[in-house]
Amino acid sequence: VGSPKPRRSTHLASEDEVLELIRHTLGDRTEAFGLRDDAAVLGLPAASTLVASVDCVVEGVHVDLSVCTPGDVGWKALMGALSDLAAMGAAPFGALVALCLPGGSGEGELALGVTAGVAEAAAAAGCPVVGGDVSEAAQLVVAVTVLGTVGGDGVPVSRSGARPGDVLLVTGPCGASAAGLRGLRAGTASTDAASAYRRPVARVREGMLAREAGARAMIDISDGLALDLHRLADASGVGFTLDDVPVAPGASLADALGGGEDYELVVALSARDADTLTERFESAGLRAPVRIGSVVSDRAERLLNGEPLEGLGWQHRVG
Amino acid sequence: VGSPKPRRSTHLASEDEVLELIRHTLGDRTEAFGLRDDAAVLGLPAASTLVASVDCVVEGVHVDLSVCTPGDVGWKALMGALSDLAAMGAAPFGALVALCLPGGSGEGELALGVTAGVAEAAAAAGCPVVGGDVSEAAQLVVAVTVLGTVGGDGVPVSRSGARPGDVLLVTGPCGASAAGLRGLRAGTASTDAASAYRRPVARVREGMLAREAGARAMIDISDGLALDLHRLADASGVGFTLDDVPVAPGASLADALGGGEDYELVVALSARDADTLTERFESAGLRAPVRIGSVVSDRAERLLNGEPLEGLGWQHRVG
Repeated sequence: VGSPKPRRSTHLASEDEVLELIRHTLGDRTEAFGLRDDAAVLGLPAASTLVASVDCVVEGVHVDLSVCTPGDVGWKALMGALSDLAAMGAAPFGALVALCLPGGSGEGELALGVTAGVAEAAAAAGCPVVGGDVSEAAQLVVAVTVLGTVGGDGVPVSRSGARPGDVLLVTGPCGASAAGLRGLRAGTASTDAASAYRRPVARVREGMLAREAGARAMIDISDGLALDLHRLADASGVGFTLDDVPVAPGASLADALGGGEDYELVVALSARDADTLTERFESAGLRAPVRIGSVVSDRAERLLNGEPLEGLGWQHRVG
Repeated sequence: VGSPKPRRSTHLASEDEVLELIRHTLGDRTEAFGLRDDAAVLGLPAASTLVASVDCVVEGVHVDLSVCTPGDVGWKALMGALSDLAAMGAAPFGALVALCLPGGSGEGELALGVTAGVAEAAAAAGCPVVGGDVSEAAQLVVAVTVLGTVGGDGVPVSRSGARPGDVLLVTGPCGASAAGLRGLRAGTASTDAASAYRRPVARVREGMLAREAGARAMIDISDGLALDLHRLADASGVGFTLDDVPVAPGASLADALGGGEDYELVVALSARDADTLTERFESAGLRAPVRIGSVVSDRAERLLNGEPLEGLGWQHRVG
């Protein structure tokens, strides 16, 4: 439904109240998009390509409410979905949020908390919530669909365009989320480390600038640098050789390679375009990208400092 | 994610297998939309308005696997979301499906069954699946986001345009889903009755023709004719008086008014446009719409056969 209407979910005693809280939290954004009708009506920019992606966050599977607030869950759900748009070089356009809430007491606070986190992430990323649905469920589930547009030539960046000789860049240090979670569980996390886990930021601006600078292939490293690099190499039919992996403060090399839930982007592009990208990031006040290696023609060659790098990915973290 | 990649969901032992089954079931549609990248890339028709809606189906809340197959759940999830687009007069464009599956054995069959049902509904409605996500969860959850387009003048039909004097039509008899569920539980359902519950059909073509015929307001009656008529009247600032409610075979008047999960549409339009609509439905080989009453200016007047009609809605059916 376009509006979060009380559809087929009558077990929530306070559901109307929850929906009002959600509308209140989202504020003017809902009205602007006609959220009280059956579907959201969206005026897209002319001559742009639409991209769309969906991502799900499940309590006890992807998030642990003992180390994050409901607001963190909402934030992570929206940013996780947006990170996939960032990897295409797309501009965020709008999000639709399906919220499944456990029955019983307290669902109003949970719903409000999650929704507030979604709204904060939406505001931070410039991606208004344009539709939603609320249901009862055994556990908290937040499914976020994001829509984005690609202007200019309208061609998004795929995973499959990397060519031998391309430079591989990453937009920031890796492993911060895994290190943050470990610190939160041990009660030793710094504010920055906790934020890396609880409030990760999708690299939307970076992705758009990388596309404009000539990126040939791009992927976010939300399942870990190693696994996602393998995916990019598989899709492009190439290999890679890495000579540097920037490791976040407090993180291990294993966190950086396989910790996951980092929303940095890996970009493959020509050496000349890599210089352009670096200049554009600097002009935009963004953190300088780090050169981690290069693309090679032998697709069986997947090396870090001359040793084979396995495609190990995100490991289940909760429960 | 555009492709149903194995993201943050590593508890499913056979998840790669599940994903391959899903790709196989969806077949060529996935390739056509570049489903193996981070996000789906969608070429929209020029000069059309985009509409979007999300709807969630939760096992034990909205569906009962003792009276439906996994395929029925997938079908109902897609059609439920599409019904909201139908109510706007939009043409289906594509769907993104987030699938949360219980862990443990058998999730491959469950995933395949649900996905097959989604694919059957997608084919029946001409709404290809363009993106997806698979996660583990405590219970089966299917969240479907649908995208649609409105051509012509690009103006979708809202709930809020009904005017005093308008005719109210419904696209078919009401209460069939509730009657079907009752019959399935009692073991007495006819094939038609079972289908009404298990394989409801969103009135997509009817909604598009109604828009073209001049519909001023429209809503689907998935929460029951009475509640949804009240919503349409509230949004339009009007009342209504009904003199006929078509009741489906095996259904009671209470089923027809409040059973819910019927995907018929209620349309408000001028008497002249109602005649046009009826002719166009006939030309298209669609069931003739039924005139149920008319719109009145007093918004407090909400009558059926001269008696007040309460806005009772869908009642929780499972568990």
